[in-house]
Amino acid sequence: MAGWSRAVRGVLLDISGVLYDSGGDGGGTPIAGSAEAVRRIKASGLKLRFCTNETQATREKFVKKLQGLGFDISVDEVTAPAPAACRILKERGLRPHLLVHNDLIPEFAELDKANPNCVVIGDAAENFTYANLNEAFRVLIGMEKPVLISLGRGRYYKETDGLKLDVGAYMKALEYACDVEAEVVGKPAKPFFESALAAMGVPPQQAIMIGDDIVSDVGGAQQCGMRAVQVRTGKYRPCDENHPQVKPDAYVNNLAEAVDILLQQL
Amino acid sequence: MAGWSRAVRGVLLDISGVLYDSGGDGGGTPIAGSAEAVRRIKASGLKLRFCTNETQATREKFVKKLQGLGFDISVDEVTAPAPAACRILKERGLRPHLLVHNDLIPEFAELDKANPNCVVIGDAAENFTYANLNEAFRVLIGMEKPVLISLGRGRYYKETDGLKLDVGAYMKALEYACDVEAEVVGKPAKPFFESALAAMGVPPQQAIMIGDDIVSDVGGAQQCGMRAVQVRTGKYRPCDENHPQVKPDAYVNNLAEAVDILLQQL
Repeated sequence: MAGWSRAVRGVLLDISGVLYDSGGDGGGTPIAGSAEAVRRIKASGLKLRFCTNETQATREKFVKKLQGLGFDISVDEVTAPAPAACRILKERGLRPHLLVHNDLIPEFAELDKANPNCVVIGDAAENFTYANLNEAFRVLIGMEKPVLISLGRGRYYKETDGLKLDVGAYMKALEYACDVEAEVVGKPAKPFFESALAAMGVPPQQAIMIGDDIVSDVGGAQQCGMRAVQVRTGKYRPCDENHPQVKPDAYVNNLAEAVDILLQQL
Repeated sequence: MAGWSRAVRGVLLDISGVLYDSGGDGGGTPIAGSAEAVRRIKASGLKLRFCTNETQATREKFVKKLQGLGFDISVDEVTAPAPAACRILKERGLRPHLLVHNDLIPEFAELDKANPNCVVIGDAAENFTYANLNEAFRVLIGMEKPVLISLGRGRYYKETDGLKLDVGAYMKALEYACDVEAEVVGKPAKPFFESALAAMGVPPQQAIMIGDDIVSDVGGAQQCGMRAVQVRTGKYRPCDENHPQVKPDAYVNNLAEAVDILLQQL
């Protein structure tokens, strides 16, 4: 039995790069064995929560896509940045200018967006145009005290047609231009992991995160007191294993292997 | 007589925001009194050099535009980042992947660009598309040791149709995504100011920089031992006067006023 799997009661799963490889067209390809692995976790009695920085679609649409790919997943099992951001915006009376993917806009439908007093940036993909970035910049620089809320700080991700810059890169561009620091919602922010743990009802010491991102998934979860395993799928690169700051509790070839090991200890 | 103007023998002039306000369409509007001010500097016997981070056009094209706006300026009076970058690339045997404005590409005509081993980023304006940024990122992340050369580190600039993100913002995006630090050619890099001073044949103690950018122009020149004056034109904003790091030797309303004061001391 691997030490890292001892006394785990709850599993947090990253989605993109762990369950499937997303395609630039909104589709994607399941990673071999992952759909079965999710079913095995559920059958084992372990608590399970999906914890994603996905911001290219509403949770509803995103979950529907995963169901179509054969995954046993429902909307209320998913912790995602946009609903978390909406709560923060409401609490603080913020009116967002949105620089997000078109398909994410419905998540913000309830909020007043007239005369914006903050900018919310997500993985806008094709909406990261020169014009849209200049517009978001002008909204920010026009504020006495610019408020920038970022739905994640990922550097890049892999789609079937190649690596793409993620929201973190564009967040850095706006941070630098306006000399502000963004407030990050989503992984690796601590409150985000904590809300996922709370939804499972499992303390961090008894939970494990399984992800493909050495910083957002592994580093973020460890900062919360959880164990974290990196899969060698998705955006994993061999040089991640020499990361100067973050050291996973273990590497596994894929989710199926992680689940094999986890279930041995039950 | 103002203390800051004492014993000045050489003047470095920023161009955009000091001589004229550029338009998004490639045109621009002269700042009142600036064309006359350039003529007065030249007639006074002071040494003069234009020192710009302009990378939206070749020096030839850019100078022609300024001549059309009424300025007495020639190509061999201008220190600009692209020719400086070309020298560096040749010295180090680097083959660039270019993320620059279409009109700047001829500056790199002599260089081998097959199988690139570095990325050169300039103010690419409309060429800052999602696809082009992803492509530059993929070239960088595919290198064992990514080399990113940036033609400036400006945050933003003002065109007649509003503020625009400058090359520095996009440089930061790529730096973050690839976990590298760009090598900056252009203001505020010390070698860039030094080459402008060498072209005038004036030591830094006897030279003054006049610019609208508190960091790139004023801060950069002062780091080289020059004095520096900020004009209240171009991208100048009142909050610049409370900048936490940089304090100009003086503020002037515009170039014409700076030249009035400079010429009094001759």
